[in-house]
Amino acid sequence: MSISEVLNQIDNDLENAIERLLELLRIESISTDPAYKEECNRAANWLVSDLKSIGFSADIRKTPGHPMVVAHSKGEGLHVMFYGHYDVQPVDPIALWETPPFEPSVEDTSDGKVIRGRGASDDKGQLMTFVEACRAWKTVKGYLPINVSVFFEGEEETGSPSLVPFMQANRAELKSDLALICDTGLYSSDTPAIVTMLRGMAQIELEIIGPDRDLHSGLYGGISINPIRVLNKIIAGLHDELGRITLPGFYEGVPEVSDEIRSQWQNLKFDHINFLSKVGLLEPAGEVDCTPLEMIWARPTCDVNGISGGYEGDGFKTVLPSKASAKISFRLVGQQSPEAILASFKTYVEELLPRDCTVNYIIEEGNPAAQMSIEHEAFDKARLALSEEWQRPAAFVGSGGSIPIAGFFKEILQMDSVLIGFSKDNDQIHSPNEKYDVSSFHRGIRTWARILDVLAKE
Amino acid sequence: MSISEVLNQIDNDLENAIERLLELLRIESISTDPAYKEECNRAANWLVSDLKSIGFSADIRKTPGHPMVVAHSKGEGLHVMFYGHYDVQPVDPIALWETPPFEPSVEDTSDGKVIRGRGASDDKGQLMTFVEACRAWKTVKGYLPINVSVFFEGEEETGSPSLVPFMQANRAELKSDLALICDTGLYSSDTPAIVTMLRGMAQIELEIIGPDRDLHSGLYGGISINPIRVLNKIIAGLHDELGRITLPGFYEGVPEVSDEIRSQWQNLKFDHINFLSKVGLLEPAGEVDCTPLEMIWARPTCDVNGISGGYEGDGFKTVLPSKASAKISFRLVGQQSPEAILASFKTYVEELLPRDCTVNYIIEEGNPAAQMSIEHEAFDKARLALSEEWQRPAAFVGSGGSIPIAGFFKEILQMDSVLIGFSKDNDQIHSPNEKYDVSSFHRGIRTWARILDVLAKE
Repeated sequence: MSISEVLNQIDNDLENAIERLLELLRIESISTDPAYKEECNRAANWLVSDLKSIGFSADIRKTPGHPMVVAHSKGEGLHVMFYGHYDVQPVDPIALWETPPFEPSVEDTSDGKVIRGRGASDDKGQLMTFVEACRAWKTVKGYLPINVSVFFEGEEETGSPSLVPFMQANRAELKSDLALICDTGLYSSDTPAIVTMLRGMAQIELEIIGPDRDLHSGLYGGISINPIRVLNKIIAGLHDELGRITLPGFYEGVPEVSDEIRSQWQNLKFDHINFLSKVGLLEPAGEVDCTPLEMIWARPTCDVNGISGGYEGDGFKTVLPSKASAKISFRLVGQQSPEAILASFKTYVEELLPRDCTVNYIIEEGNPAAQMSIEHEAFDKARLALSEEWQRPAAFVGSGGSIPIAGFFKEILQMDSVLIGFSKDNDQIHSPNEKYDVSSFHRGIRTWARILDVLAKE
Repeated sequence: MSISEVLNQIDNDLENAIERLLELLRIESISTDPAYKEECNRAANWLVSDLKSIGFSADIRKTPGHPMVVAHSKGEGLHVMFYGHYDVQPVDPIALWETPPFEPSVEDTSDGKVIRGRGASDDKGQLMTFVEACRAWKTVKGYLPINVSVFFEGEEETGSPSLVPFMQANRAELKSDLALICDTGLYSSDTPAIVTMLRGMAQIELEIIGPDRDLHSGLYGGISINPIRVLNKIIAGLHDELGRITLPGFYEGVPEVSDEIRSQWQNLKFDHINFLSKVGLLEPAGEVDCTPLEMIWARPTCDVNGISGGYEGDGFKTVLPSKASAKISFRLVGQQSPEAILASFKTYVEELLPRDCTVNYIIEEGNPAAQMSIEHEAFDKARLALSEEWQRPAAFVGSGGSIPIAGFFKEILQMDSVLIGFSKDNDQIHSPNEKYDVSSFHRGIRTWARILDVLAKE
C-alpha cells in the first residue's frame, strides 16, 4: 500500500477542501464577546456534521462556556487525539481590514494564493488540514490506519476556562497515546518545524479608581489624584533600563538556554532584521543581553495589551477621570509559576497605590510553560514525514506563543503533544487581514496524511 | 426708582424662566462632536429669537465652526458686554446618568430644588441668569438702564477656535467698556465671589506608533517595542516625587503667592477635607509644599485627560498594539507661555522616543492665564450688589478653571472682565448628572438685575 493514492486524492480535491474551509470561516465564532455565542455554537455544529460525513462518531459537548466537539474513528494500533480550536479573535480595529473579516475569499498575491479572513490561519485553516487528511484517507482507503480521536474547543482565545474541568470529567474517553496539535507555524516558508518548547502565560486586568466620579480638571486639577497617572507609573516601573522585568521573584524558574540548544538555534540563522522589518521595526526591544531568538522563544516577557481611561473620543475634554484600566500579560518560560507572578504583581501594585486609590482585578488567569519529552518514537516519525513532504529537514524549535492545551494534556491525560503547524509569520493572526497560504493548507493536508501513514507503521 | 419692582417681577416669573431654560437644555449642543453640529445651530437660533423677544437686536454670525450670537440693546452711559457659551460637554459615560442628559427636569433633593441635565450649570443655566435679568428690567421698566451687548459662542468646550479671528474681525462692534462673564461659581453655598485670577491652559493630544500593525504578543512579545509602554513611561516621567512637573522651563513665569493674598485666602478657611470628601477623596495630591487653595488657584498642573491603546473590549486579547494615544493638559498661571510649554513637552517626548517609534501630535492648543486689574469702579459696584443680594460680603478669589475669553477680551478689546457666577462645587459640570440649583438660578437673575442697576448709578 502506498500513500501516493491518498496524496493524489488530496491534490484533486483541493478546490472542494477550500470551499469547505470558506464555509467554516464565514461563521463569526468570536469567543471573547458574548454577542457571538450563537455563532460559536454554529461553528461547533458545522464541525460535528462535517466529521460525521466522513465516518467519525461525533458530537457536541456542552460546557458552561462554548461547546466542545469530540469525535472518534476506530482503527488499529496507536491511538492519537488531534486538537484544534474553532473560536477566533475579535476583529477590531475593523477599519483596517481591506475585505470584511467574515467574508473570506481566495486572493492572488505576489507570494501566491492566500485564503483571507478571520480565523483562516488561527485556527480554522489549520484544524481543517487534519480533517481533510482524514477525508482523503477515508475516500481512498475507506478507513484510517490508526485510532483517531478529534477534540475541538471554542474558548482558546479566551484562556480556555472550560477546558480543564471538561478534561477531568472525561478523562477516560479522551486519554490517548499521543496528542497531535495544529496551532503553530512553519519555521520559514520552506522549513517545517515541530515545536517542543512553548511559553506559558499569566494575564491580569486591573482597574485603578480615584475620585468617585469624573471631575473638571479646572476645579480639581492639582489637588485630586489622577488614576491614569497612577496606572502609568505602575506600568512604567515594570521594566528597568536593561529591559528586565522588576517584579520581585519574576525570574525564579527561568532556565538558561543550554550551549547545545544555543548552537542549534545559531544554525537556524534567524534573520531578526527581516523578521522585524516586516512589521515596520528596526531593532529588538527586549533584554539588552539576549539574542533575538532567545527573546521570543526562551525569555519571559511583560506586555500591556490594552489601556483605557478618561475621555477617548474626538476632540478634547478636560476631565480628570475617576478610573483607568489596563490588560497586562506575561509570557512565561521554564518553571515560572503564573500564580506566584500574579501575586508578586499585585503586591507591587499595592505598594505603589496612593491612599486615595483602590484597585480592582477583573481578570486573573495563567498557565505554565511546556517542554515536550521528545523520546516518544512518534516525534521522529513525524519529523520524517514532514521532511519528506517539504524535501527539507524539519527542526525541533521553541515557540513564543502559549498553547496551554499541551501542558494540560501532559498534566491531566499524561500525553505528550506533537505540535505541527503550517502558518507563516506574515499570516497576521490576531490582526486585521489575517490570511493562510493555500500552499500551507495544501501541504498541511498532505503532511497529516503522511503522518497518519508513518504512525501506523512499526 | 427702586430695584425692588424688578426683583419682584423676577420672583413672580421664576416658573416661566425655568421653563425657558429647560427648553434650551433640551437642545443637544455638544460642540466637540461633529454629529451635533445642527444642534449647535439650533441652540444659537433659540437664543437669537429669545433675545429678540425682549427687544434686543440679535443675530447669528457664521464662523468656520459653530455660530456666534451677537445682540445689542441701546441705553444710557456705561456699555457692558455680557459673555456666555451655549455649547456643552459630551455626555459620556452615559451609563452613569440617572436621568437622560438632554431630558432636563426640576428635581427635589435634600439640598433643595435642582435643574438636572447637561449644560444646566455649564453654561446654559448661568447665561440665562443674565438674559432673565434683562427680561425683568424690560418687562417692568421697558428699557435697560445701561448699554448692553450680548455675545454667546458655541465652541467654549473645544478651545474656542473661531473666537479670536471673530473678535479681530468685529472689534469695533464688540468693543465695550467692560465685560461681564457668567461661567464661574460661588465661593460657597452662601458666599458669592468675583474671580480675578484665572488659570490658563495648554493641551496636546499625542499618538505613539510602534509596529505598523497590531501584533500577536506570543510571536513578537519580547522583541517588539510596545507603544503603550513608551507612552506610559513618557507620562510617568512628567512628575517628580514631590509632585512637581519635570519639563525644563515649566515653572518660568509662575508667580509666588503674595503674603497679602495668602492671608486673604487663609481667612476663607477653605475646608479641603470637605472639598475632597465630596468626590470620595481624602488628601491633596499636588505639590507637597503647597496649600490646597494654592494647588487649585495659584499653581500650574499637568493632567492626563484620556488614554487609549490596544484591546479595550471585554475579555482578553493578547495583542501587542501598533499605537497608543493620550490627551494631556496643563493648567497655567501667571506669565507661563502655552507655546513654550508645549514646545518643551514635545522636546521631552522626542528625547524619550525609541528609534522604533514615531509620534503624531493631533491637537495642540493653549491660552495664557489671566489676572484682572480690579481698579475699575465696576468691580466694587458689582461686589456691593452681590453682597446685598447674598447678605454676605463677596470675595475676590482665584479660579482653577480656564476661561480664555477673559484673556482675549483684555488682549484684543482692551476690556477688563467681571467674572461672576453662581454654580456650586457639587454641580458635576463635565460629569454625569450635571445640575444647577434653582436657588443659584433665581439669585443669579436677581444679582444681575441689581448689577445693571448699580452700574447705571454715578
